[in-house]
Amino acid sequence: MNRQVKLARRPKPGMLTPDVFTIEDGPVPEPGDGQFRVKVEYISLDPAMRGWVNDAKSYVPPVGLGEVMRAYAVGHVEASSHPDFRTGEAVQGLFGVQQYAISKGRGVYKVDPDAAPLARWVGGLGMPGWTAYFGLLDVGKPKAGETVVVSAASGAVGSVVGQVAKIKGCRVVGIAGGTDKCRYVRDTLGFDDCVDYKAGSLAETLEAACPKGIDVYFENVGGEILDTVLPQMNLFGRIPVCGLISSYNAEGPVPGPANFRAVLTKRLRVQGLIVFDWAERIPEAIRELGIWHKNGQLKIREDVRTGGIDAFPETLNLLYTGGNFGKLVLEV
Amino acid sequence: MNRQVKLARRPKPGMLTPDVFTIEDGPVPEPGDGQFRVKVEYISLDPAMRGWVNDAKSYVPPVGLGEVMRAYAVGHVEASSHPDFRTGEAVQGLFGVQQYAISKGRGVYKVDPDAAPLARWVGGLGMPGWTAYFGLLDVGKPKAGETVVVSAASGAVGSVVGQVAKIKGCRVVGIAGGTDKCRYVRDTLGFDDCVDYKAGSLAETLEAACPKGIDVYFENVGGEILDTVLPQMNLFGRIPVCGLISSYNAEGPVPGPANFRAVLTKRLRVQGLIVFDWAERIPEAIRELGIWHKNGQLKIREDVRTGGIDAFPETLNLLYTGGNFGKLVLEV
Repeated sequence: MNRQVKLARRPKPGMLTPDVFTIEDGPVPEPGDGQFRVKVEYISLDPAMRGWVNDAKSYVPPVGLGEVMRAYAVGHVEASSHPDFRTGEAVQGLFGVQQYAISKGRGVYKVDPDAAPLARWVGGLGMPGWTAYFGLLDVGKPKAGETVVVSAASGAVGSVVGQVAKIKGCRVVGIAGGTDKCRYVRDTLGFDDCVDYKAGSLAETLEAACPKGIDVYFENVGGEILDTVLPQMNLFGRIPVCGLISSYNAEGPVPGPANFRAVLTKRLRVQGLIVFDWAERIPEAIRELGIWHKNGQLKIREDVRTGGIDAFPETLNLLYTGGNFGKLVLEV
Repeated sequence: MNRQVKLARRPKPGMLTPDVFTIEDGPVPEPGDGQFRVKVEYISLDPAMRGWVNDAKSYVPPVGLGEVMRAYAVGHVEASSHPDFRTGEAVQGLFGVQQYAISKGRGVYKVDPDAAPLARWVGGLGMPGWTAYFGLLDVGKPKAGETVVVSAASGAVGSVVGQVAKIKGCRVVGIAGGTDKCRYVRDTLGFDDCVDYKAGSLAETLEAACPKGIDVYFENVGGEILDTVLPQMNLFGRIPVCGLISSYNAEGPVPGPANFRAVLTKRLRVQGLIVFDWAERIPEAIRELGIWHKNGQLKIREDVRTGGIDAFPETLNLLYTGGNFGKLVLEV
């Protein structure tokens, strides 16, 4: 059978409740001509999922009611009538929260399970890694010697952002929640510093960590953290806006950044980004990240959760409470 | 004597009260070597002045207590020991709110009183015009056929932004307050449409005026207008942030843009600008605006107020209530 998570109803604002999804067993699908079947092994849990289940116009259409929940995943081809994908090959793509997926190959990339654990190909070497790569380099445009700050620094995107910024010669300061994550960001990932937003005054600790101000702030969180960073930005600073996770579960209107005026007085560039916009350059990100990963310059951590398909709803919510440590992945 | 407006004390938040300034008569200054004296004839009243009198770090140092109030102005050289500026020449520069100014020529531009009324050289052909020119073209980067929206559309900057966007082949929609201003923006300035933010639902009238969405929003106002525009922006839209006048007199913290999330979902580029950043290219703006003005493609309106130096404090406040119609200038 093919166990699947389907969207049963639109959620109310706030954390997702289990009744938003249903878990169903269907037949294992057979690939038609030009298709192949993937046995899904690891499912990526991403902050953007909270938006995908709302009935709201966004950068992608919402998941429809009764449809399999959208998700990046990685697995092996186990049956194929597609000329380019053969049985036994490892692949990643938008396979959904299910045990078996049928694909025509669109948006599917082959991955090398010998170069990195399979789960990493939906993490630091997959979509979150590509997001970090293009968002930092193409939007943030850091120069050697500049100060780069990244929020959610131990997370799937933030951890790659900071390490790539180090490779490019920047001073890099992370923002993360808790002593363990901050220690990991500093000691394992090699950031110059990491400040704990849960401890003391973030404005003060951040200022101490960034004595020359902030040139690039890579935004994953929004809310109070953005408001704390804005006054510390340098003239002509850049803020790639990759995520605003602090507001995804808001139960009412979310205040905007009260220090927005800094955009004017400091001539900041604030720019939203979504990795799909670089679709044709993804092989470049895969190649570059792969080189750094092989060299040992890019360290990546997954937080692999067990429980299979059934554990999807409650595992997803860990993202919004900071309950994960490293890229959150569900083992099927 | 030289009548001058000096900053007497730091203002409280809110509209400026007359006691913030003192009016003093000093001796008419004599130019030293390499200096010249300007008889000031028109003083520019600019929204940014409200920031200049606060004791806060901004893009320029605050005006010091006891100093002459900073202002752009235009007048004639009437005594000179400077090799490049001769008696009788018309000039504009940061001469301050006073009848006579001494200058070394830094940041001073010669103007042609035969090509346009003198007051226009601190308006649409001066700093506000240059701001519009670089802000629209360099930051907004409009393409022919795109929809450009500008707030404070009848004002010194906005009126030039819209006309330059028309020259570049865009569909241009203004936002202004009141029937008279909107009619002027449409009928005299030649915008495709102008919506009255004081009448009815701005969200609805703006949407009707921009059936293809908004590609460039040139921001002079901020606050509720920005929040109304954000959801109507198209993918990859650009928002040059030139001014946020709605908040300059705020008596408490100002809410940020509640619809900030559109920056992410629509991959907007929001970028602050100040004309000083193009200092070396100002001759280009003077030349181009001058050509369009001469051709009749660029119409400019001044709101010249009388009353001389003494009328400065109350005249300035007109800017923040929308009480002016066209570039606000004080005749000395």
